[in-house]
Amino acid sequence: MILKIKEDLKSYLSSVPLFSSLKETTLAGMAQYASALVTPKGTTLFAPDSANDKFYIVQSGWIKLYRETLSGEEAIVDILTSGNFFGEIGLAGTETMPYGAEVIEDAHIMALPRFLLAEEVMRNSLFGLAMLQSLTRQKMHRDMEIEHRTVQTAPQRIGCFLLKLCKANSEGKETVLHLPYEKSVIASRLGMKSETFSRALNQLRTDVGITVKGSTVTIHDLKKLVDFTCSACSSSFPCAD
Amino acid sequence: MILKIKEDLKSYLSSVPLFSSLKETTLAGMAQYASALVTPKGTTLFAPDSANDKFYIVQSGWIKLYRETLSGEEAIVDILTSGNFFGEIGLAGTETMPYGAEVIEDAHIMALPRFLLAEEVMRNSLFGLAMLQSLTRQKMHRDMEIEHRTVQTAPQRIGCFLLKLCKANSEGKETVLHLPYEKSVIASRLGMKSETFSRALNQLRTDVGITVKGSTVTIHDLKKLVDFTCSACSSSFPCAD
Repeated sequence: MILKIKEDLKSYLSSVPLFSSLKETTLAGMAQYASALVTPKGTTLFAPDSANDKFYIVQSGWIKLYRETLSGEEAIVDILTSGNFFGEIGLAGTETMPYGAEVIEDAHIMALPRFLLAEEVMRNSLFGLAMLQSLTRQKMHRDMEIEHRTVQTAPQRIGCFLLKLCKANSEGKETVLHLPYEKSVIASRLGMKSETFSRALNQLRTDVGITVKGSTVTIHDLKKLVDFTCSACSSSFPCAD
Repeated sequence: MILKIKEDLKSYLSSVPLFSSLKETTLAGMAQYASALVTPKGTTLFAPDSANDKFYIVQSGWIKLYRETLSGEEAIVDILTSGNFFGEIGLAGTETMPYGAEVIEDAHIMALPRFLLAEEVMRNSLFGLAMLQSLTRQKMHRDMEIEHRTVQTAPQRIGCFLLKLCKANSEGKETVLHLPYEKSVIASRLGMKSETFSRALNQLRTDVGITVKGSTVTIHDLKKLVDFTCSACSSSFPCAD
């Protein structure tokens, strides 16, 4: 864990869209309390049901948020990357975190005491509205996830995962992607057992003609993948954020 | 649709926990713009992807929020009842509603123009914080739903649905429940086809010994149902709200 100098932290905080309504002095004040964490893959930031008083912003890398059942099974509820945040759930007055957070690819993360957020919501209604809008969008993403779990087949869910990694303007051309994290984590993110994931990936290869070599995926006909996947979705490609 | 007198509306608004920080004059102002809707089962309040500028609070009855895929399949993302609200998603600046809302059991609903909410968030930071906390809890419920879709079997998901209808203090005694809405909607709410639902309900009858007659369910041994269901959940019975 490396701590950066406070001036860097302030400059980073000012670049976070959520904080765009904050004054220079507020940002400087927050930077005094902020820490920049350099966390290698495998780091557990906090375990499910543990106490935690921080708000985290992901600068780079990948973080999984997961829940654990009483019998020890894990369910990934989200995987976050650059620009995403977590830990705000404590604002609802829950003493412990309902999820755990683990670094799944080396990450840079900014941590802030959560009380600073609650204070700023009370002081600055524009910031309150920005937080509200951000949470509303996050809830919308969860609704979309529930929709997909209901109506998409396993190959369509993988197709959807791949399409989210594609640029909108790559249509027509051959598209080469690098899977951002391990296949076992992707399977788990999509709520599938490893065997289901392998079978579904094979079916996707056959049905829409993608090539998978290690962590490199080549989509030869993007339109075909879009037609196959997005018919079972209420949105259309490219996905809105 | 029946409109009530404005004084009733103000008195109802003041009883909504979300609005507890609002002044009498604000509540009176809101009541001027509010409508009380008496909506029979089957009423569509708005369709998915339609424009809508209202915020709704459910007073009684049941409302389903649903999404529709391009090929016409429906996914229920939530079912709401007394005290729940919806339509706030427009605060994020989306012009159309990502979901539709349909009354599935006769309902009384209060509708407010959404701009009043945005105005109040800007004016009253306590209200902004209350909205934020409420959305945070809603997001947490979505996380729980995603967890259940990942780790629970179909009979466990039905068990979980039944346990949410139980009082915490009924442990030990025989518990008689009335299903709040049609079985086909419950199946759909749980993301199951009707056949899967019937099979899973039968398995639940065999494994934990519940009795189902029409819409009446008798749980003979609550502890057995809790043990069966909640082992595949990160929370324990009774569920936190």
